[in-house]
Amino acid sequence: MNRKLRMGMVGGGRGAFIGGVHRMAANLDGKIELVAGCFSSDPEKSRLSGEDFYLDPSRVYTSYEEMAQKEAALPADQRIDFVSIVVRNNLHVPVATAFLNAGINVICDKPLAFSLAEAKGFVDVVKKSGKVFALTHNYTGYPMVKEARAIVKSGKLGKLLKIVAEYPQGYAASAFKDAADGAISNWRMDPNTSGVSNCIGDIGTHAENLARYITGLEIVELAAELTTFIPGRHLDDDGNILVRYENGVKGIIYASQVSSGDENNLNIRVYGTEGSIEWHQEHPNELVVKWLDKPRETWRRGNTYNGPEAGGVTRLPFGHPEAFIEAFANVYLAASEAIRDEIQGKFPRPEGYDFPTVDDGVAGMAFIEAAVASSKNNAAWTKPGA
Amino acid sequence: MNRKLRMGMVGGGRGAFIGGVHRMAANLDGKIELVAGCFSSDPEKSRLSGEDFYLDPSRVYTSYEEMAQKEAALPADQRIDFVSIVVRNNLHVPVATAFLNAGINVICDKPLAFSLAEAKGFVDVVKKSGKVFALTHNYTGYPMVKEARAIVKSGKLGKLLKIVAEYPQGYAASAFKDAADGAISNWRMDPNTSGVSNCIGDIGTHAENLARYITGLEIVELAAELTTFIPGRHLDDDGNILVRYENGVKGIIYASQVSSGDENNLNIRVYGTEGSIEWHQEHPNELVVKWLDKPRETWRRGNTYNGPEAGGVTRLPFGHPEAFIEAFANVYLAASEAIRDEIQGKFPRPEGYDFPTVDDGVAGMAFIEAAVASSKNNAAWTKPGA
Amino acid sequence: MNRKLRMGMVGGGRGAFIGGVHRMAANLDGKIELVAGCFSSDPEKSRLSGEDFYLDPSRVYTSYEEMAQKEAALPADQRIDFVSIVVRNNLHVPVATAFLNAGINVICDKPLAFSLAEAKGFVDVVKKSGKVFALTHNYTGYPMVKEARAIVKSGKLGKLLKIVAEYPQGYAASAFKDAADGAISNWRMDPNTSGVSNCIGDIGTHAENLARYITGLEIVELAAELTTFIPGRHLDDDGNILVRYENGVKGIIYASQVSSGDENNLNIRVYGTEGSIEWHQEHPNELVVKWLDKPRETWRRGNTYNGPEAGGVTRLPFGHPEAFIEAFANVYLAASEAIRDEIQGKFPRPEGYDFPTVDDGVAGMAFIEAAVASSKNNAAWTKPGA
Amino acid sequence: MNRKLRMGMVGGGRGAFIGGVHRMAANLDGKIELVAGCFSSDPEKSRLSGEDFYLDPSRVYTSYEEMAQKEAALPADQRIDFVSIVVRNNLHVPVATAFLNAGINVICDKPLAFSLAEAKGFVDVVKKSGKVFALTHNYTGYPMVKEARAIVKSGKLGKLLKIVAEYPQGYAASAFKDAADGAISNWRMDPNTSGVSNCIGDIGTHAENLARYITGLEIVELAAELTTFIPGRHLDDDGNILVRYENGVKGIIYASQVSSGDENNLNIRVYGTEGSIEWHQEHPNELVVKWLDKPRETWRRGNTYNGPEAGGVTRLPFGHPEAFIEAFANVYLAASEAIRDEIQGKFPRPEGYDFPTVDDGVAGMAFIEAAVASSKNNAAWTKPGA
Repeated sequence: MNRKLRMGMVGGGRGAFIGGVHRMAANLDGKIELVAGCFSSDPEKSRLSGEDFYLDPSRVYTSYEEMAQKEAALPADQRIDFVSIVVRNNLHVPVATAFLNAGINVICDKPLAFSLAEAKGFVDVVKKSGKVFALTHNYTGYPMVKEARAIVKSGKLGKLLKIVAEYPQGYAASAFKDAADGAISNWRMDPNTSGVSNCIGDIGTHAENLARYITGLEIVELAAELTTFIPGRHLDDDGNILVRYENGVKGIIYASQVSSGDENNLNIRVYGTEGSIEWHQEHPNELVVKWLDKPRETWRRGNTYNGPEAGGVTRLPFGHPEAFIEAFANVYLAASEAIRDEIQGKFPRPEGYDFPTVDDGVAGMAFIEAAVASSKNNAAWTKPGA
Repeated sequence: MNRKLRMGMVGGGRGAFIGGVHRMAANLDGKIELVAGCFSSDPEKSRLSGEDFYLDPSRVYTSYEEMAQKEAALPADQRIDFVSIVVRNNLHVPVATAFLNAGINVICDKPLAFSLAEAKGFVDVVKKSGKVFALTHNYTGYPMVKEARAIVKSGKLGKLLKIVAEYPQGYAASAFKDAADGAISNWRMDPNTSGVSNCIGDIGTHAENLARYITGLEIVELAAELTTFIPGRHLDDDGNILVRYENGVKGIIYASQVSSGDENNLNIRVYGTEGSIEWHQEHPNELVVKWLDKPRETWRRGNTYNGPEAGGVTRLPFGHPEAFIEAFANVYLAASEAIRDEIQGKFPRPEGYDFPTVDDGVAGMAFIEAAVASSKNNAAWTKPGA
Repeated sequence: MNRKLRMGMVGGGRGAFIGGVHRMAANLDGKIELVAGCFSSDPEKSRLSGEDFYLDPSRVYTSYEEMAQKEAALPADQRIDFVSIVVRNNLHVPVATAFLNAGINVICDKPLAFSLAEAKGFVDVVKKSGKVFALTHNYTGYPMVKEARAIVKSGKLGKLLKIVAEYPQGYAASAFKDAADGAISNWRMDPNTSGVSNCIGDIGTHAENLARYITGLEIVELAAELTTFIPGRHLDDDGNILVRYENGVKGIIYASQVSSGDENNLNIRVYGTEGSIEWHQEHPNELVVKWLDKPRETWRRGNTYNGPEAGGVTRLPFGHPEAFIEAFANVYLAASEAIRDEIQGKFPRPEGYDFPTVDDGVAGMAFIEAAVASSKNNAAWTKPGA
Repeated sequence: MNRKLRMGMVGGGRGAFIGGVHRMAANLDGKIELVAGCFSSDPEKSRLSGEDFYLDPSRVYTSYEEMAQKEAALPADQRIDFVSIVVRNNLHVPVATAFLNAGINVICDKPLAFSLAEAKGFVDVVKKSGKVFALTHNYTGYPMVKEARAIVKSGKLGKLLKIVAEYPQGYAASAFKDAADGAISNWRMDPNTSGVSNCIGDIGTHAENLARYITGLEIVELAAELTTFIPGRHLDDDGNILVRYENGVKGIIYASQVSSGDENNLNIRVYGTEGSIEWHQEHPNELVVKWLDKPRETWRRGNTYNGPEAGGVTRLPFGHPEAFIEAFANVYLAASEAIRDEIQGKFPRPEGYDFPTVDDGVAGMAFIEAAVASSKNNAAWTKPGA
């Protein structure tokens, strides 16, 4: 398939953060080109954003429904191969549905949906469409996260015992001084756009997904203590969760937006009977592997001792750091493989792909809603999805 | 008072770990000298230990009751000024009681007692004795822990929101391969000597005490999930705890002896509305202070910008690291001041002392028993001491 | 100028490392598109590389002279706006000259030339051309390097005293076991393609350039001890250099390709009378600022306290790490501004640009040759460019 | 030998730094007791210091000659077994000579002497005395330094290629603002007390000794650039040195007292053909071992994988950090073994001891004088001791 994939985007106009990340991730490897978009529900803002990206004005839309319809109607050698969805949580499923139903593959930001019920209903939409749906739980794109997963799978750590996944941020703490501050994503505080949770829905779900990706373990039940520290807010800005995974594995997941001075301090530790691993998102090229009776090891990206899982998604030699955008681009690369297969009638491959799916999204929504339900019930043990 | 303090020791014979630490802590500053001891209930072991320390054989005992009695009967210029107690948990209170009742000051290892009930009963013993009783929650002796406490007290961090205190160790995980391994303190696994808990009683209590020392906050209630991972054991080797502190502060305390590859990875993070601190026991000379909108700071021991709390317990210039023994010795120094006061009839000073007391010990026992009770009750919220 | 810049490339075919980096750097921001290339002197390899990048076969060339000529002959709305040169050192100047003479802007990999004499001669070529010439001393593209430069310029560190810049790598040490190994860039070992130096020419020059960029200081003289440790090689694989900068500032520059186990361990420390900074390429989002009598600070990319120099070249919020490719892309962004100016007849801007120029390249060549000359003269003090 | 060693001290009165370190090092293990001293040439200061240490006033002297004479005249069961010398450099040899000639063993601070000539003459004094002479190059006492030495000796790193040893401090930079500041050891600036060098003599010699201890390599020649940055001073406060070791090994040694914001940033890296090690004094419990093609390792003190060299001088389990005083105490322990042997007529043991000797001291003085001579000769290559 000797051409770049053609990409559209919904959301991500001027001033938005995550849209730019998706575009850079798509651009990086020179295998995707942005050709259409509905960047904002504000027509002028959408138009200006289209200019920023040098788009043909006729491919810049002001409604996602119109975009899905008109793009689908374009000749096969012009229309977008997939759309990236970077809108508010409450629009993820409606927008994705519109494009899937129009026969267009989808890459969508997380969390999957506004609610678990909506997410569950959406699974069928994806399945019926026969199209690719990828969810950007981007931290799973880091090479050393894939290395961590491979090490766990290899059994080198022995039987797993415990997982500690944490994601403290501090950006919202500025709202203690000035309510207008800390409002990087102020729609996230609004139950009408964000759903039942702010902090757990935005970043707790990343910690949960990372643990799930690395260990493959499902949560059996959890006991959550969510807190709204910032006065006047309706959704959580902090949460601490006890977790019981399958196979008797115990865990802690916690997340915060008011951990003053922390940035994106996503960290995970996985302990087994014979060894353990830890990975820190802010220093992503290193994976610490600890043993009972051998020197502690630091596995570094780009080395010959890396397994194929990490090696296959590495762009630079060791010591030249890769980071957030490259990891994000790995999700795009993996989804692109599926999309190219889909275009060529070969989707899905029997051996599968390495990107987060709608099922991961449903598990994420089940986690979020279980955490909220548990917290409302004084941290009672709650089964996700029940 | 122009002489060294005379110290006795109960426990700590050949092969014991913590007894040696107490002796090094006592020796370090040249202000205390070991002159008597009952190092083991095994007379030969006690005798040999006495030889190791070059003691007069007449001051080496085989029963602590005998030691308390005979030392008390010695002339004032010979008898010990205090005893250090480094025996199993179940003997802490009986031994301490014997010496206090004999009019001898006591420095005792933690946890305070075999049970909360015993601990509570012991408070009166201490008070009636009029003697000094110090508990070696030694991590509070680190200069940068004192700096952390001073920073919290200063209000620079704003209103406190959250505390995360963790103490993962991995030494016991070797027992998964060989039940005889990982048995550094095998009496700790035995409910008859250790009490209701192993992991929380041994190290969880350090994490709890550290949080309490730095923030001054009491635990209102907790929800605990303790686990016994090692087959055949009766007490916990891992525990994860949600905490509600006074003033709406939320927290996590966790501890583990099966976190393979971790050593003594005691860490604490305290978050306020304007900033946060973090301290890592394995790199104790640094205190990280994080702000909302200023560069992250690393406060290092021995600098002129350190407050008097840290500066007053510092022995070396900056950059020459101090560590565990020096921190332990700071507890001895602080207790020594009280003991010297006591000898000179000036105990207690109105302004108090900076060492852990019997009240800290009771709080610790209440924490341990609440954690065990909560865990038995499926992590139900439980009030310590209730 | 409402379109992407059109880029050509000379070198960088399949299997080459640095060509891919240049392409990713160009792609990242969606403002440049690769449309032509001469990727290899091997026609088949060049053709296949063109396919990899989905190029029009008519724009894939097998000789750079042909490419320069034919591209220049294309209509203004088709021909490349600039060429990226990623060939061996001995071809940098000939290729760049061909394109500049054809009226095409140039971005060129470092070192500038095969020799200082060639470099000096090339300055006139650039000046006469009136075109943009940018040299990819890419480490200067890191935001926190720009922050470091701004801090030095601000005078906060006081009068500068000392600079320590080091760049140890270990990749070539595998050649001790197997001469064929460690040959990532085997043309670098060959004096006919690499010039008078391997290690200093390849990476020592990065350390030198970084020091120059951050401090603005020129080297007055240096004393160098270069070594060829790997048997059978003709050029240096290690070098240690004493440096005397302007204003009495003293320095050390060292580089190595045989520092087993080091990756791209480029580090710099700059000391002034009132404070100092240190930056580590492998953890590029942090800049450590140390003071005489205040807590050590870690300035982190993406914060509001960053100056405009760092803030202006930042793509992600704090805590989401940026790395090597993003820094490289910053050189492309800065050069792109100049190229867009050039296209629009506004080059050069009076206020200048922030990318390495031909003058930096000449200084680099002077440094390399002085180091080699000094070393041949038993580390005698040698003035660069003299 | 069933008693504590009796120790005397010359120097180290109130206000002195290093004297206190020697006393803590001696106290730590409870095997040495301070019984006599000449703490100051100021009689009142010496007397008060004696009171601080609870000494018998008859054993507190005001002249070292008197002390040597009177102590030697005491009965064998009272007189000191050894003296610790912590005076200014110019007095090291005279004081040590007085005690050795009086038949008393000596532990002496570094550098060995005021000059190389004096040091060379002193070697005979030591040899003729038949007594123990130990020099406190204390950094060699760190367990992980001994582990480093064992790893080098094992050949695991392959053939050695390069050594980088650095010791930047910043304390003296305060003198740029106020000449009276930065004067921790103001006699060190005075050629009459310090000798020909301040910075290299005080700390450069530690870096040199550390390299020598770990690798066993002697310096063949060096090229040094020493600088006096602080106005009004006569001796160096900074120095950068190129080194040629035996066997073709190349090196850099540098030291500084004006590296603003650095504390005691002594670091060493040793590179071989197959791997390398690095050790940082400010985090002394870790030794980083890097390999060509295996994950980087962190060897940590107190583990079963440590060799007997590190294991034998370790007091605490892993994860409970040891630091500066413990390392210093290891020198005292090693010297104590020799002193106990000497008392029992068994000195020297055929297998030797692990403490720095007079020969290390001579090598150190040769290094210092060669550095000064080279620097005066515009960094000409200079052979130590020639």
